[in-house]
Amino acid sequence: MNNKVAIQGILGSFHHQVAKEYFGDDVGVDECLSFDALVDSLLSKTSSVGVMAIENSIAGSIIPNYALIDMNGLHIIGEHYINVQHNLLVLKGQSIEDITEVYSHPMALLQCKVFFKQYPHIKLIEDADTAEVARRIHQGQLKGVGAIASKVAANIFDLDILAEGIQTMKNNATRFVIVQTKNSVIPKEAINKASVMFELGTKRGSLATVLNVMSDCKLNLTKIQSLPKIETPWRYSFFVDVTFEQYEDFEKAKALLKIMASHFKVHGEYKNAKK
Amino acid sequence: MNNKVAIQGILGSFHHQVAKEYFGDDVGVDECLSFDALVDSLLSKTSSVGVMAIENSIAGSIIPNYALIDMNGLHIIGEHYINVQHNLLVLKGQSIEDITEVYSHPMALLQCKVFFKQYPHIKLIEDADTAEVARRIHQGQLKGVGAIASKVAANIFDLDILAEGIQTMKNNATRFVIVQTKNSVIPKEAINKASVMFELGTKRGSLATVLNVMSDCKLNLTKIQSLPKIETPWRYSFFVDVTFEQYEDFEKAKALLKIMASHFKVHGEYKNAKK
Repeated sequence: MNNKVAIQGILGSFHHQVAKEYFGDDVGVDECLSFDALVDSLLSKTSSVGVMAIENSIAGSIIPNYALIDMNGLHIIGEHYINVQHNLLVLKGQSIEDITEVYSHPMALLQCKVFFKQYPHIKLIEDADTAEVARRIHQGQLKGVGAIASKVAANIFDLDILAEGIQTMKNNATRFVIVQTKNSVIPKEAINKASVMFELGTKRGSLATVLNVMSDCKLNLTKIQSLPKIETPWRYSFFVDVTFEQYEDFEKAKALLKIMASHFKVHGEYKNAKK
Repeated sequence: MNNKVAIQGILGSFHHQVAKEYFGDDVGVDECLSFDALVDSLLSKTSSVGVMAIENSIAGSIIPNYALIDMNGLHIIGEHYINVQHNLLVLKGQSIEDITEVYSHPMALLQCKVFFKQYPHIKLIEDADTAEVARRIHQGQLKGVGAIASKVAANIFDLDILAEGIQTMKNNATRFVIVQTKNSVIPKEAINKASVMFELGTKRGSLATVLNVMSDCKLNLTKIQSLPKIETPWRYSFFVDVTFEQYEDFEKAKALLKIMASHFKVHGEYKNAKK
């Protein structure tokens, strides 16, 4: 049995931080340079479990990751939140005027683009991982190049921090889910959150009817997102997260929703990490 | 009065295509290399109206653009859909083995990443615009570099199309909104769609209650998206699009929602472009 944890990124990345906080400091990780590679690591049994960013306050849900979970039949067995702080890292001795290119993960670039508006001479370039760019600057002793990454990465790769907390939203909570190919064996009394999806047509009030049932079953909605069904005009998929106090309430809602909505699917039942 | 239309991108971009289809072939455009620049063009009155991508089938809502509309008090006065087809464009005579770097808009890169999995020697690099990269390859006669852009761009900039329709979702409908700083003067009888936002606490069933009111007022939901409120745990913003047959029904719903939800705001009332 392989107990490695697949993370998006390398040692020093935010996914690595989450893996350490969730599984313990001595966690063994498989460094994956994309979310697709992370899924491959699980499917090939290189790793037994994975850590995947799923939503943040700026971009909302990372819909492509929902699609990866759905298409590959992964199960969400837990969640974890961290407050992501981005920093501009450069080779020691470099100043902001020296920097002409900054590389990072697309989500990090998006979160910091307001900061870089004041430096129009800097070109922002998408890269696979935040920490990997820091490693590259260190290994190649690259001048003129910046990374957007964590303080941990600055420390590991011996770089200067030119600017701290450069993301627009200072309180930048990012939610990660813990996923695996097999369903979890969490005891029912520990489960108080679930991620589900279902489809509805456009019959007026159909979503309200479903939400009424959830409310009647004492489920609290913590997230909802509609997505038009590809190739099927006027049908929608809904991704919904709910919290509850009694697992029995959720079981009752599941039984009802299977009848009311088509393609009802549970992506995971797990313990709420908030509060 | 300046009648220019602000677009994200340059001539030959998908935003340009939308501007032509919506305003006519001889539309005058202001080429903006980011959505922020597009908003600046409107606020500085360089343009009187703008075209902005707002959601697609793959990534869902482009939440940062909702934030731009909200924070800058823009009004949505219309919408337009096009089926975006991405193509790999290169300098004439180049083959796929010659190409080591492909530049495009982050959304185009995301939509085509599965295609590039079979070519691990190609590095994907984020750029401001799809068509602008095609122009650059043409002007610099750049070898080894590819662009992801439209067939129109291939034609304008005299490039080879190495691969057609390389996005994962072949039916890639993208929704654009038409925005301006002043509210619209659309006659009420032409209005049958609206984009609204509101906030709710986590009182159980509060969203179901709001959706029941919408349903009672004969509004059809075509999109819903929750977003956690920054710095306010357990409060959520909801972005909702509705369609209706009678403007009076929407007026009634507005009056009720202003009382029921906090921070209720109408981002636009316009004509539904579907069907």
